[in-house]
Amino acid sequence: MEKFNFKIEKKIPGKLGRAGVIHTPHGDIETPAFIAVGTKATVKAMTPEQVKEAGAQAVLANTYHLYLEPGDEIVRAAGGLHKFMNWSGPVFTDSGGFQVFSLGVAYEEGGISKFLTEKTGENNGRKSNAEKLAKIDDDGVSFKSPKDGSLHRFTPERSMEIQHNLGADIIFAFDECTAPTADYAYQREAMNRTHAWAKRSLDRHNELNLEAGLPNDQYQALFGITQGGRFQDLREESAKTIGAMSFDGFGIGGSFEKKDMNSAVGWVTALLPEDKPRHLLGIGAVEDLFIGVENGADTFDCVMPTREARNGSIYTKRGRINIRNAEFREDFTPIEADCACYTCQHYTRAYVAHLFRAEEMLAATLASIHNEHFFLTLVKNMRQAILADRFVEFKTEFLTGFKKSG
Amino acid sequence: MEKFNFKIEKKIPGKLGRAGVIHTPHGDIETPAFIAVGTKATVKAMTPEQVKEAGAQAVLANTYHLYLEPGDEIVRAAGGLHKFMNWSGPVFTDSGGFQVFSLGVAYEEGGISKFLTEKTGENNGRKSNAEKLAKIDDDGVSFKSPKDGSLHRFTPERSMEIQHNLGADIIFAFDECTAPTADYAYQREAMNRTHAWAKRSLDRHNELNLEAGLPNDQYQALFGITQGGRFQDLREESAKTIGAMSFDGFGIGGSFEKKDMNSAVGWVTALLPEDKPRHLLGIGAVEDLFIGVENGADTFDCVMPTREARNGSIYTKRGRINIRNAEFREDFTPIEADCACYTCQHYTRAYVAHLFRAEEMLAATLASIHNEHFFLTLVKNMRQAILADRFVEFKTEFLTGFKKSG
Repeated sequence: MEKFNFKIEKKIPGKLGRAGVIHTPHGDIETPAFIAVGTKATVKAMTPEQVKEAGAQAVLANTYHLYLEPGDEIVRAAGGLHKFMNWSGPVFTDSGGFQVFSLGVAYEEGGISKFLTEKTGENNGRKSNAEKLAKIDDDGVSFKSPKDGSLHRFTPERSMEIQHNLGADIIFAFDECTAPTADYAYQREAMNRTHAWAKRSLDRHNELNLEAGLPNDQYQALFGITQGGRFQDLREESAKTIGAMSFDGFGIGGSFEKKDMNSAVGWVTALLPEDKPRHLLGIGAVEDLFIGVENGADTFDCVMPTREARNGSIYTKRGRINIRNAEFREDFTPIEADCACYTCQHYTRAYVAHLFRAEEMLAATLASIHNEHFFLTLVKNMRQAILADRFVEFKTEFLTGFKKSG
Repeated sequence: MEKFNFKIEKKIPGKLGRAGVIHTPHGDIETPAFIAVGTKATVKAMTPEQVKEAGAQAVLANTYHLYLEPGDEIVRAAGGLHKFMNWSGPVFTDSGGFQVFSLGVAYEEGGISKFLTEKTGENNGRKSNAEKLAKIDDDGVSFKSPKDGSLHRFTPERSMEIQHNLGADIIFAFDECTAPTADYAYQREAMNRTHAWAKRSLDRHNELNLEAGLPNDQYQALFGITQGGRFQDLREESAKTIGAMSFDGFGIGGSFEKKDMNSAVGWVTALLPEDKPRHLLGIGAVEDLFIGVENGADTFDCVMPTREARNGSIYTKRGRINIRNAEFREDFTPIEADCACYTCQHYTRAYVAHLFRAEEMLAATLASIHNEHFFLTLVKNMRQAILADRFVEFKTEFLTGFKKSG
């Protein structure tokens, strides 16, 4: 059997979306699937067993973070990410490009758009805070560690070497992620750079495989990343260019403005080879997941479920609740009555509310378990709906019930 | 069968120590036993399943903390502590006396001795910071909430009412915990107050049981607390006085100076009724546990295992290690090779070191699981040694291997 392959089981009639199975050396991923984010080789506040019990089939770790701490050589010496973090299922690593640019410019606080505006500003010739931390050229990116100010450099080749050390099942080409607000000229320039980097990533990946005598049991699938911002011609050119390269699958990169999501994902997936899996990078809002699945994205990752959980923002089918609100202090019902997650099976809203007020770590754990389970189950249910030929009905039903708050 | 009883299985020849079983409405506790501390109705950074898997038979929660947050009425409405916190085994609650005095005076940072010196100072007529937060009289203690400055008052009666609302299996009489440095006159005064409060606690406890139609399945065993500081005559007088009251068991209170441990515990246990269990409050250092068991204490509680775990201070049979030290970054062995805990079965020192450096919550969880397992297993092994008639040998062997660092 092949080390890595993708089989389509069923399509959404009249749409680009599909249900399938990605086969990896560490097990299968039934798609569409939400991938749990384990940035630093841990899904925050959860054990791997809790991640699995919440329904996760795979986790996605971060090349940039693991390069800085503990260092990719240490992960390799530990036997690779799976063994290091005690996760026997499939693992993804992103290429580190996005984080190289974003760190130190209030990514956590200001969100993606703030960072991207600043980065684009820099590259369009204006000053920005980002300038001090990351500098891009056609060969790669130089950046300072936000921890100790030490200088580092990522190139497509370096990203491949690091990701080979980390040993994930699915790895990504090194790309430049642009802002949706960047102008056409800059988007084209960045896209061309991403395409050149994709080719170099692929070459170095193949070279490393040859050096190591691969493919063997540790086969790593390499996904190329398409870019192009909000411009249809660029998105299509990128899909054709990257799609023509011999990648095992594809990432759809770049943040999307809300209004662009519906069209932009479809521009790309319509032109990518149908028989290879596509990962929509960093996307995870409820509506966006429906749009992504409908338009042919197979896998998704997003830090939102666990990040919001740590703030007490908890998802239910009827929208988000803030568990810190006074009304929940004496609410002795589960977060969601019909939820099968560990948290809802064993604890009340009152207890979770108490843990948040008491600033206990178990608060983050119980909320993260529920939110991960919510998103994992949501995308799993989309898959079931595709297989049952009722995706559109499921989407309408779910979004009608889900009144997004906040 | 009785709702609560204690059976001695075997004694240490020539010593006061013994192995036994405490039977409670929520299950048996094989003694000697270390009781996991779950101050705010959660053992910090662990799920109840992790606590149980680490070997805990029972947990001890805190009356003072739960009174302030979420409030004992809410815990009662939730169905009691067991249901609220998802712990089906036996639960203890302390009486809240110690915490009423200690909060707001750097208990967390400065430790017990700082607080006690200040408290004693106050009561001996000198000014102290503690004066602003807690004021003691013969009827009870008035204190301010450290959160919002609101005024509260605990009396023996109030402590019983709160502990009845919380619903633990083993509860404690309200006492005054003095400093080992307090002078004789003050120790006597405080001891007399503790004795009067013990009587009032017992009376209110019986009254509440009558009101509620108890004893029923929810029988709560009340333990009286002996005090007396470092003075043999006071310790003995307290043991006789409290021991003569109709308590289900006894707490041995007051912090001990290291040099007093060996003698002071024995003064008390020699005079307490032999057929009732004794809990040594707040004691948990490795050597002190041996001394406690040897001198006839049956159960112990201490926050140290989890508190030190959160700081990266991890126990092994060859002493403590600080997992943040550079030497562990590339150490791909478990924390302890022959340890059966979840952490040692699945992770390396390198991974735990990485989690601490990356400031990930799982660091606290994995370290807490190991440290709890270490102390639970240590006291369990003391029990096995008593049953096998080799306690003294076990003590010598263990302490020889355990070279305390830090």
